[in-house]
Amino acid sequence: MPLPAPNLYPDFDTIRLSHVNMSVTDLAASRKFYTDILGLQITDEDNNHIYLRAMEERGHHCVILQKDTEAKVNIFGFKTFDENDLDKAHAYFSGLGRPVEWVERAYQGRTLMTNPPIEFYHKMDRLAPIHQKYKLYKGVKPLRIDHFNMFSPNVDESVAFWGDFGFRTTEYTEDEETGKIWAAWTHRKGGVHDIAFTNGLGPRMHHVAFWVPTPLNIIDLLDLMSTTGYVSNIERGPGRHGISNAFFLYITDPDGHRIEIYCSDYQTVDPDLEPIKWDLTDPQRQTLWGAAAPRSWFEEGSVLDGVEARDSDLKASPIIAH
Amino acid sequence: MPLPAPNLYPDFDTIRLSHVNMSVTDLAASRKFYTDILGLQITDEDNNHIYLRAMEERGHHCVILQKDTEAKVNIFGFKTFDENDLDKAHAYFSGLGRPVEWVERAYQGRTLMTNPPIEFYHKMDRLAPIHQKYKLYKGVKPLRIDHFNMFSPNVDESVAFWGDFGFRTTEYTEDEETGKIWAAWTHRKGGVHDIAFTNGLGPRMHHVAFWVPTPLNIIDLLDLMSTTGYVSNIERGPGRHGISNAFFLYITDPDGHRIEIYCSDYQTVDPDLEPIKWDLTDPQRQTLWGAAAPRSWFEEGSVLDGVEARDSDLKASPIIAH
Amino acid sequence: MPLPAPNLYPDFDTIRLSHVNMSVTDLAASRKFYTDILGLQITDEDNNHIYLRAMEERGHHCVILQKDTEAKVNIFGFKTFDENDLDKAHAYFSGLGRPVEWVERAYQGRTLMTNPPIEFYHKMDRLAPIHQKYKLYKGVKPLRIDHFNMFSPNVDESVAFWGDFGFRTTEYTEDEETGKIWAAWTHRKGGVHDIAFTNGLGPRMHHVAFWVPTPLNIIDLLDLMSTTGYVSNIERGPGRHGISNAFFLYITDPDGHRIEIYCSDYQTVDPDLEPIKWDLTDPQRQTLWGAAAPRSWFEEGSVLDGVEARDSDLKASPIIAH
Amino acid sequence: MPLPAPNLYPDFDTIRLSHVNMSVTDLAASRKFYTDILGLQITDEDNNHIYLRAMEERGHHCVILQKDTEAKVNIFGFKTFDENDLDKAHAYFSGLGRPVEWVERAYQGRTLMTNPPIEFYHKMDRLAPIHQKYKLYKGVKPLRIDHFNMFSPNVDESVAFWGDFGFRTTEYTEDEETGKIWAAWTHRKGGVHDIAFTNGLGPRMHHVAFWVPTPLNIIDLLDLMSTTGYVSNIERGPGRHGISNAFFLYITDPDGHRIEIYCSDYQTVDPDLEPIKWDLTDPQRQTLWGAAAPRSWFEEGSVLDGVEARDSDLKASPIIAH
Repeated sequence: MPLPAPNLYPDFDTIRLSHVNMSVTDLAASRKFYTDILGLQITDEDNNHIYLRAMEERGHHCVILQKDTEAKVNIFGFKTFDENDLDKAHAYFSGLGRPVEWVERAYQGRTLMTNPPIEFYHKMDRLAPIHQKYKLYKGVKPLRIDHFNMFSPNVDESVAFWGDFGFRTTEYTEDEETGKIWAAWTHRKGGVHDIAFTNGLGPRMHHVAFWVPTPLNIIDLLDLMSTTGYVSNIERGPGRHGISNAFFLYITDPDGHRIEIYCSDYQTVDPDLEPIKWDLTDPQRQTLWGAAAPRSWFEEGSVLDGVEARDSDLKASPIIAH
Repeated sequence: MPLPAPNLYPDFDTIRLSHVNMSVTDLAASRKFYTDILGLQITDEDNNHIYLRAMEERGHHCVILQKDTEAKVNIFGFKTFDENDLDKAHAYFSGLGRPVEWVERAYQGRTLMTNPPIEFYHKMDRLAPIHQKYKLYKGVKPLRIDHFNMFSPNVDESVAFWGDFGFRTTEYTEDEETGKIWAAWTHRKGGVHDIAFTNGLGPRMHHVAFWVPTPLNIIDLLDLMSTTGYVSNIERGPGRHGISNAFFLYITDPDGHRIEIYCSDYQTVDPDLEPIKWDLTDPQRQTLWGAAAPRSWFEEGSVLDGVEARDSDLKASPIIAH
Repeated sequence: MPLPAPNLYPDFDTIRLSHVNMSVTDLAASRKFYTDILGLQITDEDNNHIYLRAMEERGHHCVILQKDTEAKVNIFGFKTFDENDLDKAHAYFSGLGRPVEWVERAYQGRTLMTNPPIEFYHKMDRLAPIHQKYKLYKGVKPLRIDHFNMFSPNVDESVAFWGDFGFRTTEYTEDEETGKIWAAWTHRKGGVHDIAFTNGLGPRMHHVAFWVPTPLNIIDLLDLMSTTGYVSNIERGPGRHGISNAFFLYITDPDGHRIEIYCSDYQTVDPDLEPIKWDLTDPQRQTLWGAAAPRSWFEEGSVLDGVEARDSDLKASPIIAH
Repeated sequence: MPLPAPNLYPDFDTIRLSHVNMSVTDLAASRKFYTDILGLQITDEDNNHIYLRAMEERGHHCVILQKDTEAKVNIFGFKTFDENDLDKAHAYFSGLGRPVEWVERAYQGRTLMTNPPIEFYHKMDRLAPIHQKYKLYKGVKPLRIDHFNMFSPNVDESVAFWGDFGFRTTEYTEDEETGKIWAAWTHRKGGVHDIAFTNGLGPRMHHVAFWVPTPLNIIDLLDLMSTTGYVSNIERGPGRHGISNAFFLYITDPDGHRIEIYCSDYQTVDPDLEPIKWDLTDPQRQTLWGAAAPRSWFEEGSVLDGVEARDSDLKASPIIAH
């Protein structure tokens, strides 16, 4: 089965992923982790919420932490090119029979929510630049949110769904025996991905990623985490993925939400960019350098608010297959 | 005078800068410089031309060197979103009374040329990825062409002209006394710039830039150049610009064409991204760290084929003003 | 049992480790590995030998590869402060009842050999500096040989033996239950170690290490090895040891000789520097960041020419204990 | 005139430079600079003194700041191999007719002072290691004091004086016309220098240097200084010296004491290491990459307590000659 061609002229224009809203069970512990270790800047907080942004971002938030009794992901946020795109998105998802709802969000303009819990907005409060306020940099010194990665029970369907409103695939893994897509990386913003899908019990969030400029950011973070009580929050890495050529580190927040620190990337603005195909049996697609990932990395993920995850439609061993 | 607002809905869709065609007087000397020092990969060559690409590029060429009796820049190339954009561009420039011409270009599809010598195409021969063929990396290990920088005799006019077909300004320098724009950085691809303009005798090319991932690429290049006979080709840097926050190095090729090695950058895909304004009297906009640029950097540039440069409409000392 | 105090006024003055002579079974394969991957420079070669040096070294060789039918280590070489130290060493080892022999070595002056196969010399042919010939740098760009690491069946005895002729311990692992030393790092040259000892079937060489200035050298090497057919020669890393604070990578040459690429270190010239003690039960002494080492790393080593290895006197599981 | 041969068997054994005592006029301003910018750790302070150490040091202090009405350097401190070396040093300097005095120093054992204001000690209070307490790292993240650099009115004499008690020259600049030494780098600890001498009005301190592991430490510092009010304290760099191959940055403290941030270096423990000779007319010895140093760098230095500086015995222009 060939990779579904993305719609180059989608009904509405999404420009990039924007933010994630996650429930956490201990707001103080999360605050410490997200500011001291991840190095995000607090832009607002109250007893139940913390809003954060990365160092080059001027939108109000890329992460919202929300106090709750269980850890889960509530919202994946995306920004559209203009206000009209929101109305077009409303019509588009309605036409598909998806639930759509206009919701109120602090610091955002009109916001459209659908299910799975994706929201679209155009306007967000804009903040003064801080990327040259170097004394504020700490932790891993993250510059921006980079992408979401999702467990999907049927990646072929995920690629078709997102591709229809414009998400273009840059790299993918195919199971050559079955012709099924095992994993796919899709984007709007001109990098390797805004959102990626990996075969598994889903939909669940595998990780949210933040971009840093050099591998030394990651090495500094490892030294910091391993000497400040966070050594068990280091899950995998450092390493380089064959797919995307990313230098990576995977860590977990106090609730087990997985975070990737992501370095490298390449420019993908060409609409005729050929997706790079990897074979499921090629071990270097996962780790160019050959080190195996721990089992937790293949199995654990964050549940989505209000969404029941289901088993993958594919039957291969997740350890072999990822 | 306020910064002219860019047209968010231009008549045609340019996605990025693509390539530069430069005349050089000694093809063998240029070949050595562009491959050993700059580290570009040759994709084709004959007695009069060398085609080159950077390590993450899959289009056939980002630089064409052309043997000639004098050094000059012949073409600034840009890629459009699709083929129809070329026809729309033809109509657009014709409507402005600009010369337009369909030209034949090796390795490119239909190509539209106007004046100043800008060309637009959609299709270029695609090559297999080499970004993970690490043994090919050499010189400064450039990943992609990043931007053009032009001397302009009237930057207000340049910003208005390019803005009308969609180039959005990310940062600019204003002369607060006169209200005139001294310099501006404009983009299509979602980075700080595809093309920038600086006040001066023009139009001439100030430099063409290539992107590298870390400052250590630049330090390695300095060590290499200074011990292989190229020490006098190092013009300025390393340093950091206040504007764009770029870690930079300026070098000159054997004909004096200036090349920037450019590191850092930030994501600018938001259409509502506020341009950052710098004052002409702020010395840190030029060099955050305070080191002065040499006079040559303010005065020397590459002439454009078939275009007479004229003096700037502004009168300030170029040394003070840049 | 306390750590044996080193002799601060040894009978003779050894200034540093100098070189290793290793038998390899395929000289052409080793030549490619040691020059393209490790990046050492050939200083001489014939049908049966290759002499190599690292980039900042001016002595003729830090590695001698010798064609043979089996892989083994033939010589660990050390340099003395002056010629008289050789005579003093002769008297010293004779006094211990050790075998001593004056041997002929190409490119070296008078050379004293004892058993285990350690040799001492003062004079070696000196070569012109190449550390600023940047175009010669390749592979991991090694600056100098850094240390040997040995499996020892009785580390207490090893520390006492080497300490008596002046090797001072900088860090060590103690089994608090038995009071036995599990591993120790000892030096002469003012870094963390010239030679280290780890409990295990020995004496065998665990690895020989080369020093590089930044973690990026190691990351570049990983990218190179994993895309040029050497992915299976990557054994462990990158990571940071708790002990020595080294950023490390372990790779194997075509015969399985283990090589560490070693970055970081600290200055240890103070004779009153307090050794840092680690407990055998502290997992971070091995890997500060928490990733486990593969079993091969605890078990495999290079045999020494003419020396029978014997089991360790300690009984703990090598996996737990290392 | 050939370079004076160092005494390989000096009367007493100095192992390394250790610390500097500097008078500063505003202790609060200096405290802020030395901790926030330079990143040293305070080990003690009172109303008139601040004691500081770098991150890998276990001796109590490498810098003592002393409140005073004028900026000057009071003491250059060196550590000996043992206590007996202090008595031998006393005899040695007495024999030369130099003033010698046993002085009391906080946190140090017996301390011998001579003139120029050099002091020798063996024992200093030892502190617990902090090099793996990564959350303490800040500013440029200095690992250790590296060297002193002095203006000398007669470098030939300085090299002869220091060489007689064991300081070995690693690199030097000779004026080939006159045969005079223009500058020299001498060491005890096995690096390029513990103390260097440059022709000029002296004795004065040109700078004191701190060692950092990578050029990125220096780039981070430049970004920090230039955005926290210290841009005018950046004097020269970043760059690479031909001599010593150091990647460098020169900054000035609030009183104008010059500090070098020093990266790279090479191992020099071989007593037969050949000094590298540079010609006074070779511009790359100063800056491998070709950028000129500012005039201040050639002319300004810190006066020494109780020592009158005198003009150089050499007559060349300092701008040309350095």
